[in-house]
Amino acid sequence: MNGGSQPPARRADVAERAGVSPAVVSYVLNGGPRKVSPDTRDRVLKAVRDLDYRPNHVARSLRTQRTMTIGLIVPDLANPFFTELMHSIQREAFESSLALMVGDSGEDGALQEQYIRSFVERRVDGLILLPAHAGMSGLEHLKERGLPWVAIDRYVPGGAEVATVMVGNWEGGFQATNHLLEHGRRRIGCIAGPANVRSTVERVSGWRSAMTSRGIEPENHLLRHAVFQRAAGYRETTRMIESAEVDAIFCASDEQALGVMRALNDLGLRCPEDVALVSFDGIPTGADVTPSLTTMAQPFAEIGRAAVERLIERIADPGRMSAATLLPVHLVRRESCGCAATDRDDYTVSLYRAITRRDHPS
Amino acid sequence: MNGGSQPPARRADVAERAGVSPAVVSYVLNGGPRKVSPDTRDRVLKAVRDLDYRPNHVARSLRTQRTMTIGLIVPDLANPFFTELMHSIQREAFESSLALMVGDSGEDGALQEQYIRSFVERRVDGLILLPAHAGMSGLEHLKERGLPWVAIDRYVPGGAEVATVMVGNWEGGFQATNHLLEHGRRRIGCIAGPANVRSTVERVSGWRSAMTSRGIEPENHLLRHAVFQRAAGYRETTRMIESAEVDAIFCASDEQALGVMRALNDLGLRCPEDVALVSFDGIPTGADVTPSLTTMAQPFAEIGRAAVERLIERIADPGRMSAATLLPVHLVRRESCGCAATDRDDYTVSLYRAITRRDHPS
Repeated sequence: MNGGSQPPARRADVAERAGVSPAVVSYVLNGGPRKVSPDTRDRVLKAVRDLDYRPNHVARSLRTQRTMTIGLIVPDLANPFFTELMHSIQREAFESSLALMVGDSGEDGALQEQYIRSFVERRVDGLILLPAHAGMSGLEHLKERGLPWVAIDRYVPGGAEVATVMVGNWEGGFQATNHLLEHGRRRIGCIAGPANVRSTVERVSGWRSAMTSRGIEPENHLLRHAVFQRAAGYRETTRMIESAEVDAIFCASDEQALGVMRALNDLGLRCPEDVALVSFDGIPTGADVTPSLTTMAQPFAEIGRAAVERLIERIADPGRMSAATLLPVHLVRRESCGCAATDRDDYTVSLYRAITRRDHPS
Repeated sequence: MNGGSQPPARRADVAERAGVSPAVVSYVLNGGPRKVSPDTRDRVLKAVRDLDYRPNHVARSLRTQRTMTIGLIVPDLANPFFTELMHSIQREAFESSLALMVGDSGEDGALQEQYIRSFVERRVDGLILLPAHAGMSGLEHLKERGLPWVAIDRYVPGGAEVATVMVGNWEGGFQATNHLLEHGRRRIGCIAGPANVRSTVERVSGWRSAMTSRGIEPENHLLRHAVFQRAAGYRETTRMIESAEVDAIFCASDEQALGVMRALNDLGLRCPEDVALVSFDGIPTGADVTPSLTTMAQPFAEIGRAAVERLIERIADPGRMSAATLLPVHLVRRESCGCAATDRDDYTVSLYRAITRRDHPS
């Protein structure tokens, strides 16, 4: 491929040209474990370029059993919640010199298994999985292979053998509903995720607990399960409004909530005046719709960091027992809950304002 | 890793157990080139499972020089336009049995080069690159390696040696501006992308041509360049409104347009009444903001399909000369341009309505 007959440069050639030890070449290319001065670093990188040195990861992986590549499988890359998660995991993987392969299972167990097999065949060092709600397909394959993996966002059975990174779903459901109760709402419906997803079950349980703690026993038709898509939020809202009187809705995802808002609008109901709304996730779009969306924001950056850290720990020590990592969500007050402008803590607004102030010193 | 002392199963073992030829095993696992009957397919897959057969892609890639993995580098995974593109490319790659590695250059040339080197080291079969606007870093590396690659969304120099997949940027800028002119607007500002991106130059040129074709010569301060981010759209709108009288804005990306809308709102200007707005890209969020965003929609699925097809052609025949692939954009009429509700062709609205009709037969 080189076009010439010269043999490919080796690490020792680079070291000689840069006047450093071969170990220093590795430190520069791997970003560690030892620090290297900027001058030395530049010299090594110049030698790498001059000699067109390319460490052969494929051949090396056969010796070391490491490809420095990890896989990520999520259920729906068209949903901004999952792309936010992917974005933060991508950034964290890069910080650790890991390349990232991605797959979109479409919430389909068979497709998830196909991705798992494909990534295993390509010898990823480990896998971060956001399991499809349809099932646990492919997990036995990981287990038999002894491949390190971490589950995020949704629980999988398996106890301490499975490393999970989750957020406080019960607390989020409770806090969101409680906020609506504090606004004086009493007939609070719940548009939940699919019933077989444990985070759904916990958010619903938080909603129910907030209600019963005020002596309100929610009727059955105030709860509706649906997939995490806008059209599903739209449909279930229409059905709920047809069968029950509601003055507020707690919605288990922002993506569904965008459909809820559109349904309310099409039904001639004002949000928040007629039906207040608090959602879950904290995707950026929530700040831009009208009314802007009050939501339980997930800590995307922290989830990504924790997922990659837990995975690296398991790659280093596959037998390790893992506790679940539980990260907090927090209420972002905007307009859809009925908060007055002065009560809002919309970080996007403050960001824009800060930028404008900085650029226009007065 | 297997825990047992049994040697790993080979393709021949699978073939024997399933009662087929080894070639048929390959057809099933590679999805081609020959068709296999569903019955045979099930038998082969059962044998694969029973024997826990795992084709060794790493060792095989050393022999065949194919890893069946491709790389994708985009400038900003926090921008929904790029995640929409990634989503369609991911889907297309999967259809062709290719695994996808992704990288986020952050519009930074050095980081782009680092990803290129990382993917080359991991022996991707090819690369799809959405170049950082900061420069062309790393491209010589690809060229020297003879690695097949395709540029999407932004031009790179290199003529027929570089396969590009682009959309009609000039036409889009012209059509968007012309639509605002048809609404009777005359002082139409342009919030453009960075000046060194050729798609920006073309969109700006389309805007200018539409204006001059009506005998309007736009003043200099009606044009402002900015990065493709909301806060940049916000800032440049504030500055433009301070220095010029405008009755409409053509904005070069939806992500910036969300900042434009917020700036107009904060400045006490109504959209579309005081300042009408047409944007570019067609991200789903545009349908959910108020007013909903009139935009030049890009054909995401077609871009993804063309990019993967062009790349596969180049992998099969690296010496191939490539014409640029140019795909059309189309105007999606919503509210921000001033169209009446009856003129709108908002496909999201029709989608919701269709769903609801289907579920509620009357």
